Amino acid sequence: MSLVIVGTVAFDELITPFGKSGKIVGGSATYASLSASNFVGETKIVSIVGEDFPEEQLQKFKEKGIKTEGIEIVKEGKTFFWKGEYHNDMNSRDTLDTQLNVLADFNPALPEDCKEAEFLMLGNLTPAVQMSVLKQMNKRPKLVILDTMNFWMDIAMAELKEVLKEIDVLTINDEEARQLSGEYSLVKAAAKIFEMGPKYLIIKKGEHGALLFSKDEVFFAPALPLEEVFDPTGAGDSFAGGFIGYLAKTRDISFDNMKRAVINGSAMASFCVEKFGIQRIEGIQDAELKERLRQFISLSQFDM
Amino acid sequence: MSLVIVGTVAFDELITPFGKSGKIVGGSATYASLSASNFVGETKIVSIVGEDFPEEQLQKFKEKGIKTEGIEIVKEGKTFFWKGEYHNDMNSRDTLDTQLNVLADFNPALPEDCKEAEFLMLGNLTPAVQMSVLKQMNKRPKLVILDTMNFWMDIAMAELKEVLKEIDVLTINDEEARQLSGEYSLVKAAAKIFEMGPKYLIIKKGEHGALLFSKDEVFFAPALPLEEVFDPTGAGDSFAGGFIGYLAKTRDISFDNMKRAVINGSAMASFCVEKFGIQRIEGIQDAELKERLRQFISLSQFDM
Repeated sequence: MSLVIVGTVAFDELITPFGKSGKIVGGSATYASLSASNFVGETKIVSIVGEDFPEEQLQKFKEKGIKTEGIEIVKEGKTFFWKGEYHNDMNSRDTLDTQLNVLADFNPALPEDCKEAEFLMLGNLTPAVQMSVLKQMNKRPKLVILDTMNFWMDIAMAELKEVLKEIDVLTINDEEARQLSGEYSLVKAAAKIFEMGPKYLIIKKGEHGALLFSKDEVFFAPALPLEEVFDPTGAGDSFAGGFIGYLAKTRDISFDNMKRAVINGSAMASFCVEKFGIQRIEGIQDAELKERLRQFISLSQFDM
Repeated sequence: MSLVIVGTVAFDELITPFGKSGKIVGGSATYASLSASNFVGETKIVSIVGEDFPEEQLQKFKEKGIKTEGIEIVKEGKTFFWKGEYHNDMNSRDTLDTQLNVLADFNPALPEDCKEAEFLMLGNLTPAVQMSVLKQMNKRPKLVILDTMNFWMDIAMAELKEVLKEIDVLTINDEEARQLSGEYSLVKAAAKIFEMGPKYLIIKKGEHGALLFSKDEVFFAPALPLEEVFDPTGAGDSFAGGFIGYLAKTRDISFDNMKRAVINGSAMASFCVEKFGIQRIEGIQDAELKERLRQFISLSQFDM
């Protein structure tokens, strides 16, 4: 087992109906690796930060078995920053500020041990960076997951389509699946997306759960109905980290095992939204995860 | 087993991206009873139509074991008519015309055998009519299901709350659950709604499935991802008819059996949307239902 997660390590500032977070640690690789660390002993992050990024957080990663040698620290550079405000329903948000900073020139040079990864997650970054990472691998990983968003479909569709040819699992939301495929029906969208390269498609629907498609099977994992969604930031990345972490732990990429991975990912997302930022996802106990999985079973299993 | 369904028997005219239906038979009691007839040998409709309603349709009901003695036929009256247009995404629609006609003076007088019903579905009608039906029952049914909508919350909330005190299962959509309870979280909404009387709450989320809440359990049934949604009209009523039909057939109102009933209702809804109007829901074969249930199992069941 070896798991590499490429993505952002960043600062966020969040405004929700419950309060203001101030400047806190965020980023797709942060959420995904903390989530994956509940399943695997070692995860390697590939990312970039500025000198302003707290050494204390890098230390916390190490305590969780997350290796940070792949995080480039740019001298005198500033870390990527995103500020956003959520509306009352928590399903929509406005971006108030984006400062790319060191991320603008991110050109990852993979440490040698990362080039041997069996499980590779390419978090939401410019498709050119995602492709560059793929090309640096010494061998084709057992499984490559790619996350992307509408922004890259708008400004870099050709590059995105090149990367899609090389991956196994694509994770996007329902609107992005429709944009990428030009099909409203998600069943038709999945069929079109499979022609582009991916063998599996995960459609993330937030509070409405997630769909996992293969060419001839489909599985649906509900989201856990929660009393309170405190902060949705990072839920999708926590989902993806739990998904690939579970697969890396079990080393089984059959569709039946992917179902279990999707449920574990959904459990991680359900934890993530309970507190601001990474507060909840960095402190999950085994017993809590076990109980949460029991709730997912109770929520969705029936005996016909 | 005895099942009574109170609701509209009507004419619809539908415009969808796939075409125009012309004037066709519709109505909540029509869809619900046709759906329920897949489970029970006899269903009794309580409704009202005008002299313009086709005798041929009443005959078709009878062939399905649906008793029509409770359908009042108003001499020289005109049947309730609704015309609507669906947008490209099939999730939103505009009402183009509503003619209440005979429904405006609907004051149901229940046939004697309907007053003994063990299972009673009060379809979406003015709360005063729903209450009048309840008061005519000779004994409290084993289970009363009520369907309603935002319109009655806007103009008759007090009367609606009176009826809610008397029922077992409320079926509404997520926005209506939020409006009725004043809570955004569906978990909190369910808790508030239970204080109003119902013991069970079914939240219908269309393409996102359905949630079944009891005071201490929650179950989620996904919607089947479909290649094409041809016409969503009647999907909610087909769901409710399948739900109560399955319960009436099995005479078991435990939460575990309600889970199975929700899956059977979801299967009915998935058939309903495949063709215009009642075309699909009136012609379901046992083998088709069995195969559809198998698809729901494959879609949602996993082995942890």
